[in-house]
Amino acid sequence: MVTVKQVIDALHQVQDPELKRNLVELGMIRNVQVENSQVRFVLALTTLACPLKDQITADAKRAVLALDGVKQVEVELAEMSVEERRRLGYGETKPGSAEHLNDIRRVIAVMSGKGGVGKSLVSGLLAVALRQEGHTVGVLDADITGPSIPRMFFAKSVRPESSPLAILPPESRTGIKVMSINLLLESDDQAVIWRGPLIGRAIQQFWGDVFWGTLDYLIVDLPPGTSDASLTVMQSLPSSGVVLVTSPQDLAGMVVRKAAQMAYQLKVPILGLVENMSYFVCPDTGKRHDIFGISHAEEMAARLGTPFLGRLPIDPEVARLCDAGRIEDYTTESFTPIAQRLAETAPLARRFG
Amino acid sequence: MVTVKQVIDALHQVQDPELKRNLVELGMIRNVQVENSQVRFVLALTTLACPLKDQITADAKRAVLALDGVKQVEVELAEMSVEERRRLGYGETKPGSAEHLNDIRRVIAVMSGKGGVGKSLVSGLLAVALRQEGHTVGVLDADITGPSIPRMFFAKSVRPESSPLAILPPESRTGIKVMSINLLLESDDQAVIWRGPLIGRAIQQFWGDVFWGTLDYLIVDLPPGTSDASLTVMQSLPSSGVVLVTSPQDLAGMVVRKAAQMAYQLKVPILGLVENMSYFVCPDTGKRHDIFGISHAEEMAARLGTPFLGRLPIDPEVARLCDAGRIEDYTTESFTPIAQRLAETAPLARRFG
Repeated sequence: MVTVKQVIDALHQVQDPELKRNLVELGMIRNVQVENSQVRFVLALTTLACPLKDQITADAKRAVLALDGVKQVEVELAEMSVEERRRLGYGETKPGSAEHLNDIRRVIAVMSGKGGVGKSLVSGLLAVALRQEGHTVGVLDADITGPSIPRMFFAKSVRPESSPLAILPPESRTGIKVMSINLLLESDDQAVIWRGPLIGRAIQQFWGDVFWGTLDYLIVDLPPGTSDASLTVMQSLPSSGVVLVTSPQDLAGMVVRKAAQMAYQLKVPILGLVENMSYFVCPDTGKRHDIFGISHAEEMAARLGTPFLGRLPIDPEVARLCDAGRIEDYTTESFTPIAQRLAETAPLARRFG
Repeated sequence: MVTVKQVIDALHQVQDPELKRNLVELGMIRNVQVENSQVRFVLALTTLACPLKDQITADAKRAVLALDGVKQVEVELAEMSVEERRRLGYGETKPGSAEHLNDIRRVIAVMSGKGGVGKSLVSGLLAVALRQEGHTVGVLDADITGPSIPRMFFAKSVRPESSPLAILPPESRTGIKVMSINLLLESDDQAVIWRGPLIGRAIQQFWGDVFWGTLDYLIVDLPPGTSDASLTVMQSLPSSGVVLVTSPQDLAGMVVRKAAQMAYQLKVPILGLVENMSYFVCPDTGKRHDIFGISHAEEMAARLGTPFLGRLPIDPEVARLCDAGRIEDYTTESFTPIAQRLAETAPLARRFG
């Protein structure tokens, strides 16, 4: 007959896939009982809402069943008390509690300084194109007061699950993990009226308290401006670099140069420049109209000493798909070369570099 | 022969047009000498850089020449010492030092939540249209990290003059007073990398330390977002209300609703909704293309319980003029009705109301 110690030893080999520590060490295994070839125990989850509970249960069962002399395993699920979680050090979500669980190889911040030049669109398309190339990808929406990423990726309202250890970001149809303040609000048009310090703290939580897991690329969509959000991302996140987005309007160029200056000053590499809203092709005549003026993007990139990555036309279809949560249905032909070039050139996130 | 007292009495009638107090009271008149029909005195300016010095000198001369028996007046200009200015209470620019000199009847904040929907364009066109109707108008660019107002109004770089008492905003060709952080920077693409509290303080200075004088309308161009800048404007400035700017894209609409919520919560009236970038008229076919999707602006206005003020097409001409500092050359036909309606309905700034 198998002993309790043998069962516990076997469960020592089973990791919580999220917490990356074994179940025994986490205090999740209780009340182990052995009756002939039958084993029973309680598996205390940090929360019953744990989205990984089926996997953990199956893993635990399998490990015990592999023991000689065990024919049946019964697992009773339980939830840790607040006190128990606190004893584990996980009583409340602590800042940065998930950071050591994540393995994020490249962090690319998308920035423009000016709003409405299509930063979020470029962030979204970059994520989609990298995902289509087979990479694991997440998008961190650092625009706390004007978040537009969730609307592009989800046709209907989704909410992140949360364990006591970490926030679990919802996944898009093609498996892109997304975190945004809008996923946490009652309704998506609720205003977030926060001064700078709170904005900074929210972004740090989206980095440190979210269980991103292993990602090849985390795309960070910055809000317009060179104030709190951009500062927090550049100072607290180990960015590989920033992609600058501009539009042909000269005014946009000026503000994008401000963003570039900020990156220089904070010593974050500029990976390249993308021009959005470059032109509109009239569907009737096929003629190209420079609606927002003549492009100066190549010269600007040269002046900034950064590669010019390419231009995107104004396309009513992409606006329609983004509004419908279907950005992943967009044929990103024009964007794939941009994404590939970035994928090749982006250095590893600074803490690995 | 005229007496020194008579000269001083006469100068009591002359006001410093900026400080709105008479020259004697301000301690500007010194060393009055009368020789027969000739009068000499020293006019001590708070600063020799005072842009109004010619006007003050001429006013002072005229007042003394009007005295019986005076045939010639010689004015020697001098500058007050720091100590003298300090004794006057004007040693350094104090926060809010110009506020009591200003008489601003209506303060209209232009807001969108989302960037790039044309907030600054609407601010600029609103100022131009109100000015064309004969009003006195100023524009306060509250977008500290992405200021785009100066570029629209000035073809080349201008700088505000400053007196010890106040910053004097430059005037555009048609006489619109403009204040923006970009007028104070070494170069217009210099980045302003400030966290929220500094952003708020800069906006308060643009209100309280700028000599706006008498204005029928002060248009405040807000940055995107519902964080520091918008909070400061709504909490510290006596706004008449906000004009919301949206674009047909649904995503923009969502963020504009956030801005509306902020206005509700801070009890600032919403004066109306303007839709920008509504459509593009192909110059070859005359056909209208809904480049950013079908408009829902009327429904949105109805939902927000605010008047729908009108829509503006995408017009490459306006982008060109804005980039060239010539927004005042734009024929604002499509905008005049919007401005008139706002002019009629905007309540007086709250402190007068």
